[in-house]
Amino acid sequence: MAALFRGSRNIWLRWNKHADFAFVSLRSMASKTPVGFIGLGNMGSPMATNLLKNGYPVIATDVFPESCKELQDIGAQVVDSPADVADRADRIITMLPSSPNVIEVYTGPNGILKKVKKGTLLIDSSTIDPAVSKEMAKAAEKMGAVFMDAPVSGGVGAASLAKLTFMVGGLEEEYEAAQELLTCMGANVVYCGQVGTGQAAKICNNMLLAIGMIGTAETMNLGIRLGLDPKLLTKILNMSSGRCWSSDKYNPVPGVMEGVPSSNNYQGGFGTTLMAKDLGLAQNTATNTKTPIPLGSLAHQIYRVMCSRGYANKDFSSIFQFLREEEGQ
Amino acid sequence: MAALFRGSRNIWLRWNKHADFAFVSLRSMASKTPVGFIGLGNMGSPMATNLLKNGYPVIATDVFPESCKELQDIGAQVVDSPADVADRADRIITMLPSSPNVIEVYTGPNGILKKVKKGTLLIDSSTIDPAVSKEMAKAAEKMGAVFMDAPVSGGVGAASLAKLTFMVGGLEEEYEAAQELLTCMGANVVYCGQVGTGQAAKICNNMLLAIGMIGTAETMNLGIRLGLDPKLLTKILNMSSGRCWSSDKYNPVPGVMEGVPSSNNYQGGFGTTLMAKDLGLAQNTATNTKTPIPLGSLAHQIYRVMCSRGYANKDFSSIFQFLREEEGQ
Amino acid sequence: MAALFRGSRNIWLRWNKHADFAFVSLRSMASKTPVGFIGLGNMGSPMATNLLKNGYPVIATDVFPESCKELQDIGAQVVDSPADVADRADRIITMLPSSPNVIEVYTGPNGILKKVKKGTLLIDSSTIDPAVSKEMAKAAEKMGAVFMDAPVSGGVGAASLAKLTFMVGGLEEEYEAAQELLTCMGANVVYCGQVGTGQAAKICNNMLLAIGMIGTAETMNLGIRLGLDPKLLTKILNMSSGRCWSSDKYNPVPGVMEGVPSSNNYQGGFGTTLMAKDLGLAQNTATNTKTPIPLGSLAHQIYRVMCSRGYANKDFSSIFQFLREEEGQ
Amino acid sequence: MAALFRGSRNIWLRWNKHADFAFVSLRSMASKTPVGFIGLGNMGSPMATNLLKNGYPVIATDVFPESCKELQDIGAQVVDSPADVADRADRIITMLPSSPNVIEVYTGPNGILKKVKKGTLLIDSSTIDPAVSKEMAKAAEKMGAVFMDAPVSGGVGAASLAKLTFMVGGLEEEYEAAQELLTCMGANVVYCGQVGTGQAAKICNNMLLAIGMIGTAETMNLGIRLGLDPKLLTKILNMSSGRCWSSDKYNPVPGVMEGVPSSNNYQGGFGTTLMAKDLGLAQNTATNTKTPIPLGSLAHQIYRVMCSRGYANKDFSSIFQFLREEEGQ
Repeated sequence: MAALFRGSRNIWLRWNKHADFAFVSLRSMASKTPVGFIGLGNMGSPMATNLLKNGYPVIATDVFPESCKELQDIGAQVVDSPADVADRADRIITMLPSSPNVIEVYTGPNGILKKVKKGTLLIDSSTIDPAVSKEMAKAAEKMGAVFMDAPVSGGVGAASLAKLTFMVGGLEEEYEAAQELLTCMGANVVYCGQVGTGQAAKICNNMLLAIGMIGTAETMNLGIRLGLDPKLLTKILNMSSGRCWSSDKYNPVPGVMEGVPSSNNYQGGFGTTLMAKDLGLAQNTATNTKTPIPLGSLAHQIYRVMCSRGYANKDFSSIFQFLREEEGQ
Repeated sequence: MAALFRGSRNIWLRWNKHADFAFVSLRSMASKTPVGFIGLGNMGSPMATNLLKNGYPVIATDVFPESCKELQDIGAQVVDSPADVADRADRIITMLPSSPNVIEVYTGPNGILKKVKKGTLLIDSSTIDPAVSKEMAKAAEKMGAVFMDAPVSGGVGAASLAKLTFMVGGLEEEYEAAQELLTCMGANVVYCGQVGTGQAAKICNNMLLAIGMIGTAETMNLGIRLGLDPKLLTKILNMSSGRCWSSDKYNPVPGVMEGVPSSNNYQGGFGTTLMAKDLGLAQNTATNTKTPIPLGSLAHQIYRVMCSRGYANKDFSSIFQFLREEEGQ
Repeated sequence: MAALFRGSRNIWLRWNKHADFAFVSLRSMASKTPVGFIGLGNMGSPMATNLLKNGYPVIATDVFPESCKELQDIGAQVVDSPADVADRADRIITMLPSSPNVIEVYTGPNGILKKVKKGTLLIDSSTIDPAVSKEMAKAAEKMGAVFMDAPVSGGVGAASLAKLTFMVGGLEEEYEAAQELLTCMGANVVYCGQVGTGQAAKICNNMLLAIGMIGTAETMNLGIRLGLDPKLLTKILNMSSGRCWSSDKYNPVPGVMEGVPSSNNYQGGFGTTLMAKDLGLAQNTATNTKTPIPLGSLAHQIYRVMCSRGYANKDFSSIFQFLREEEGQ
Repeated sequence: MAALFRGSRNIWLRWNKHADFAFVSLRSMASKTPVGFIGLGNMGSPMATNLLKNGYPVIATDVFPESCKELQDIGAQVVDSPADVADRADRIITMLPSSPNVIEVYTGPNGILKKVKKGTLLIDSSTIDPAVSKEMAKAAEKMGAVFMDAPVSGGVGAASLAKLTFMVGGLEEEYEAAQELLTCMGANVVYCGQVGTGQAAKICNNMLLAIGMIGTAETMNLGIRLGLDPKLLTKILNMSSGRCWSSDKYNPVPGVMEGVPSSNNYQGGFGTTLMAKDLGLAQNTATNTKTPIPLGSLAHQIYRVMCSRGYANKDFSSIFQFLREEEGQ
């Protein structure tokens, strides 16, 4: 049965290649086979919603009943456990908070692999340790299923607008099948290589992001103390070699840019705890591969300290505020 | 007499504004008043040459006779000391290696201020501690002269092509006069604020540059160890929030980009010792203003260590090589 | 059968070795029950030898046949696998390089737990992640066995002289039984608390050791550059608040102390790779428990870089040499 | 004239103070020549008092009249300026907050050097940049005077009890003369070498102290999170290679030791701002001598951040509290 599904999808794909537009209307028809979705949090919920919007029947589950209820109200079928999802869908997307959750959802007593069908495509969009992705891929392979890691960049807003970027690792021959679903939820889908490289790309990007953000905050703070106007300094950096995403798109200094968390008391955006989590993953993978990451490691420690000093839920650009406060205050 | 010179220069400027091309030939006539130039090193020499090319008589000096000889051969008048320069020119540019040299050249026994004329415009393009710039400005003011700091970004190549960027600090009413000369040597001239802010802007930019470069090197190294292709990882970073000048314009991984030092065995470019020097300035100004710069400070230490491990004369992007070497080699 | 081996080995010893071994065999008497020993490397081999010297029959195994041969020659019974050891001994000591080896030896296809007898005491002297110790303890408990972690401080010399320090974690009621064996191999045995706390104590000590060593090296280097005599500076630090084990017992500056690796070209002692490994464990446990360790983390990165710059096999006090080299050399 | 002052003051003391002062004045005899003292702050005031107790007439000054009044009440002669002190005493001790104060007091318009007599011994106990000490020594030498740097370790308590440690730099042939005075105020006087080495020793010690303290705090925090009892962990560290002054004499964890600031809500002791200042000096001297100090530099940044997060006036062992707070609190 799974083979049949996979077969039919492949035929559809084969046709689709040469006649994209012709198939748009067919694609949204009721003939689409269901997609499983596990993990209906802040990110997972709008992602699953976008699958529904694209005409895919969704079989969903989550440990929080309220999250399930919401998705059920807009058309998803809710089941009790990951195993139940695996019983009813041969394409499953998971979006979970961390490595232990992924291990549980895949290999736990009611996990996906308990009932997974041969040929099932498993796509994990959680941000986790690439070593865990590889383990899951091996475990899936033993059951005849295919596992791909596809973590995202972009936050809740991008998830709602289907503007996420997916970084995908896994067998190249399965990439096209994954892409079909991921393009319903994201604007960019990038194939990165073997299993785990999606995670690797995500972790690498976020580590460099953290370094750039702290560096920008230090630099702006120093410049202001030396008498420079923050907008002027930003302008100079952005036309020079100091330029980075944190200086030109997400400046951490209140008042320099509009529409970024620094101009909204560091509300919204990407929370410091989330950044600390991603840096923990970078740290672990670096330690495990014996790779020196002096600045990445220090960035991790700084965000870790911030988490314990009241900045846990502020946007990660609040590092400017953390460093800035005058002495004696 | 100085007032007269300054006056005539301003008239020229007023005319020049509305008839750039018409004045090109006039500009290079003998009517231009001479410009002093002190410090004829790798940077100073092409800068002075560009003044000559723009028709300015140049009165020059340097501690190395050979440097003087070269410039003399193309038309400069060489004198014995900074004091002698000050005796003959009321616009003087200095381009020196470090703070002590600047102090000596301005306030030493044969220094500029020994013979400086009232109203003389002193422009220091050295990269030094902004506190020293402020001291020099005060000392110049006592003699009735005006001091501006105008450090550059861009290397020897940019100096030769008159493509430098000048960051200028000093009295706003003198900026225009400085700009006239600086545009002969650079493509961008940015007014930053009071004396010392030119240095501040330069130091800030280079600190963030160092952080971004080390961060990029760490990230690329980690990604490669995790199985990512370096060109692909670069592409992903550059379309994401990890993007920075070191990832998209000056990538430190050999083979990712052409025409950068990493693809030329880290020859040319901006040497590690120079970066270490600028980070030392950042460190000092941060310490003096009690500003925390955790990443900037660590970047300084890393480049300092590199200087003692054989990387002193390689381009500063060689941090990738420094971090990368496999264990046991 | 085990008794037979034991008897014949003792005779062999009596015939082939000098007086103290002859005495040992008398002292030990036939009543002692055999002890299993898995992992006969640089540390494990002298440790197992000390058990033999104390009259314990030893049932041993290792993946390297040569290591087994050596121990067999002095009286141990060698078997094929950890499972075989578990089949013949109800007290087993393991001394392995890292977490994956421990997992394999305990839970692998030929692992201890495949044939472990109820009530067996398992003592792991490897230095590994405390989380793995806890996992092993749980797995052992399921089989009715008792697992304790007992990592050591002290190197090969201390192992040979039975002068190791053991830090022991596990059930307090089993501590006495462990102590009986550990005192044959070490001078100090410290009970630390629940399973994993032995590892925790070891990791904590070594992290602080690394920080103290790098700190001492930086300080001595700076002092020497500022004109202080290294012996005098050492004396001052040791009578003041800068005092630490690395300054007063293991000074990293050649010539300050005798009998330490720094006075022997950094040969012997505790290798940089081993320190990097222990710091990796500290980093992992800190990340997993969300504990900030800014200096520990930077110490880790520094030793990691040293490993790739040719210092892997030098004593960890060679950080002085790494930091010291003059620029331009 | 100086003899006259001395005599009359001693009579005054005998009349106005209790028995031990009366005895002191007898002990001192009329032969002692007066000692100048500039800087009557928390440290300088008890130091000057100890000179008085030892029978030395003291000629003092300070910018704060109240500080002068207090010392005057117990027998010192107060004058208006450092120049006035130099006019009346040929041995002068200075105890000032930072480098700029020292420069002002020695070379300012009313500075010591304006009226210093040939052969005067100048002892500076301030903690400042060794480069400034060298400058002062040169300036003093031009006037025929001798300058020595003699910074102290030990706080206000040690100053009161004459238990300070002095680290002395300067001409060896003048050391004995300095020692005579310093032993009145301290328990240890260590000759370190040429001018500036006293400062160097002080800076080096305090840098290593800061590293050891942060390292101890990180380690204790990590150990506690891993389930270790803090007293037990302290005991283990102190019998092992992790031992340092901060673990065995000044433990930062509340409840581990009595009589240290950590057991008194981090009140008293050595304030975080003072440590940040000393680390700033270490950073500057390291930068100026191109010496890498990765951990010292990070320690500086950490104490700098603490100063701006409300820890400025707490003892520097409060780093434990700074790192410890649980997330989300």
